[in-house]
Amino acid sequence: MENLWTKNLRDIDPYVPGEQSSEKDIVKINANENPYPPSPKVFEAIEKFNASSLRFYPNANATPLKQALADYYNVDIKNVFLGNGSDDVIAIAFQALFNSDLPIVYPDLTYSFYPVWCSLFNISYKNYPVGDDFRINVEDYKEKNGGVVIPNPNAPTSLGEGTEFVEKLMEYNQDSVVIIDEAYVDFGGVSSVELTKKYENLLVTGTFSKSRSLAGLRIGFAIGSEKLISVLEAVKNSYNSYTIDSVSIAAGVASVLDYEYFTETCNKIIKTRSRVTDELRALGFRVLDSQTNFLFATKDDLSMKDMFEYLKSKKVYIRYFSVPRIENYVRISIGTDDEMDIFLKEVKEYLK
Amino acid sequence: MENLWTKNLRDIDPYVPGEQSSEKDIVKINANENPYPPSPKVFEAIEKFNASSLRFYPNANATPLKQALADYYNVDIKNVFLGNGSDDVIAIAFQALFNSDLPIVYPDLTYSFYPVWCSLFNISYKNYPVGDDFRINVEDYKEKNGGVVIPNPNAPTSLGEGTEFVEKLMEYNQDSVVIIDEAYVDFGGVSSVELTKKYENLLVTGTFSKSRSLAGLRIGFAIGSEKLISVLEAVKNSYNSYTIDSVSIAAGVASVLDYEYFTETCNKIIKTRSRVTDELRALGFRVLDSQTNFLFATKDDLSMKDMFEYLKSKKVYIRYFSVPRIENYVRISIGTDDEMDIFLKEVKEYLK
Repeated sequence: MENLWTKNLRDIDPYVPGEQSSEKDIVKINANENPYPPSPKVFEAIEKFNASSLRFYPNANATPLKQALADYYNVDIKNVFLGNGSDDVIAIAFQALFNSDLPIVYPDLTYSFYPVWCSLFNISYKNYPVGDDFRINVEDYKEKNGGVVIPNPNAPTSLGEGTEFVEKLMEYNQDSVVIIDEAYVDFGGVSSVELTKKYENLLVTGTFSKSRSLAGLRIGFAIGSEKLISVLEAVKNSYNSYTIDSVSIAAGVASVLDYEYFTETCNKIIKTRSRVTDELRALGFRVLDSQTNFLFATKDDLSMKDMFEYLKSKKVYIRYFSVPRIENYVRISIGTDDEMDIFLKEVKEYLK
Repeated sequence: MENLWTKNLRDIDPYVPGEQSSEKDIVKINANENPYPPSPKVFEAIEKFNASSLRFYPNANATPLKQALADYYNVDIKNVFLGNGSDDVIAIAFQALFNSDLPIVYPDLTYSFYPVWCSLFNISYKNYPVGDDFRINVEDYKEKNGGVVIPNPNAPTSLGEGTEFVEKLMEYNQDSVVIIDEAYVDFGGVSSVELTKKYENLLVTGTFSKSRSLAGLRIGFAIGSEKLISVLEAVKNSYNSYTIDSVSIAAGVASVLDYEYFTETCNKIIKTRSRVTDELRALGFRVLDSQTNFLFATKDDLSMKDMFEYLKSKKVYIRYFSVPRIENYVRISIGTDDEMDIFLKEVKEYLK
């Protein structure tokens, strides 16, 4: 007999996060992590952090970090929202901004968490398939909807869209909130942050996990109109007032203030990406023009699944998705030049 | 004209977290923070933390910290859930465990976040008034309900209940999930962690913010049956997989492993509490028998609101609630002996 108390438990598919390998001596280019450490200023901020202060609650608004981001993006502090990683930010945005009877819309090939949040918050959704070239067709997004969410650049396709695309999207969606998820924008994408000053219904989200090498610290943010940010704050403060801890605030500020290291690191990754793209193409791969810190690639006469397994056996971890339309593609995060040389060497071995 | 896109925004009362004073040279005994720094092992863990590793995502299960807690509480790791502060843990528990048509029940005088979560997640609730002595009457909780949540010890009353109370509560609520919120238990309360082995529908929550002096790090946890924990994990992983950052995991483990410092600190606070209780009573105050790190007190012929304001003007910050039934009470967190001496001196000044 089942106990009666179990009937009120939330019936939800247990979404299980991918366990990351903790093996040593592997080339780990499977999670879009940054191959370079965070800024030396971050090391310093943590080393010098006064642990005594941890007995106090953190600043509930994480004001120093909000102000650093406001200055960086040339917006007011009232236009900045912070969360425990961009997953937290986007989850709160879904709850706060998508309360329509109409389905929200997003591409079929995109961040796999969107349908999970829709399920958790009982939001209906509709997907528009990307083209055969994996590009998003903005004309699809003319139809009435309950909200729009699009990563730009998109993942796992690595493709980015420009300002014209976003302007059209906003023209077609004057009655909806539009979220542009810019997790990968710092690797050569076009940011829509400036457009949030023009469109009150546009929210841009970002993360410290990729370009700032701080996946381990959990800092995500959103930039938008005071109206949108105030609704995000109201929902966040009704859930958990203190989402960013004191160490993350200090380290996050240190990261934002070190502009030089940040651009240097992003540029190194872009340079390596360009070289690896060329080398893979020379080997006969089709590689999309990435604006991210990863490549999305295939080879017509070759099983990507088998190549993925082969590389794994050689301790080179890339990412394979068993998902319709892309079942013969792999996603390769950009590592250091040395790591990518090992990757390329093993690919060549496999092709023999 | 209001824009159409605003109609899908969540309409929610903006819950504004209390801003903490950042003034120097104040006696801050208003937020139930610990007056002592965290364990020296925490200082060491942060100083020696390898910031390079921050480029990787944290362990999604925060396994080292879960294991440390499992060992500490003598349960299996599958009985431990972790969150970004106990607010995060309880919010997830409300979402995951309270999905009934019947209202959930809790005392009228208790943690002020419960109704906020009910409003956020559309959970109906009913309050049972505590007695005139501020004790919870377990017989009230016989009525059918959608779930029970009770802090033990309770806040702001400071009163704790024993095992007999919880056993009765479980006897009366075999068809509901019961959450016992043990934020303050380490200061002399009676923990129900052992009872989670007997009652599959009992969840006990805790925090590192009070007894472990780590409010700034945001670590909360829950102990319960594998059944309950698995539902919490499913909801958490559908929201945000990586809620505990890598620094917090390392520092949290260091704290749990330093049992000696932990008990020493708790005992110091209990000793100071005992002394301040006696002194206040000698001054004619009614002070409840606290099992927490704060006192709940009143004086019949005196306005507590005025005393609160007076102390504030003397840079001694205690807490006053403008809440029915307790509008002539104050909550005084236990600080160091020196801080409490300043507090007592100013109270005596005020009484003159």
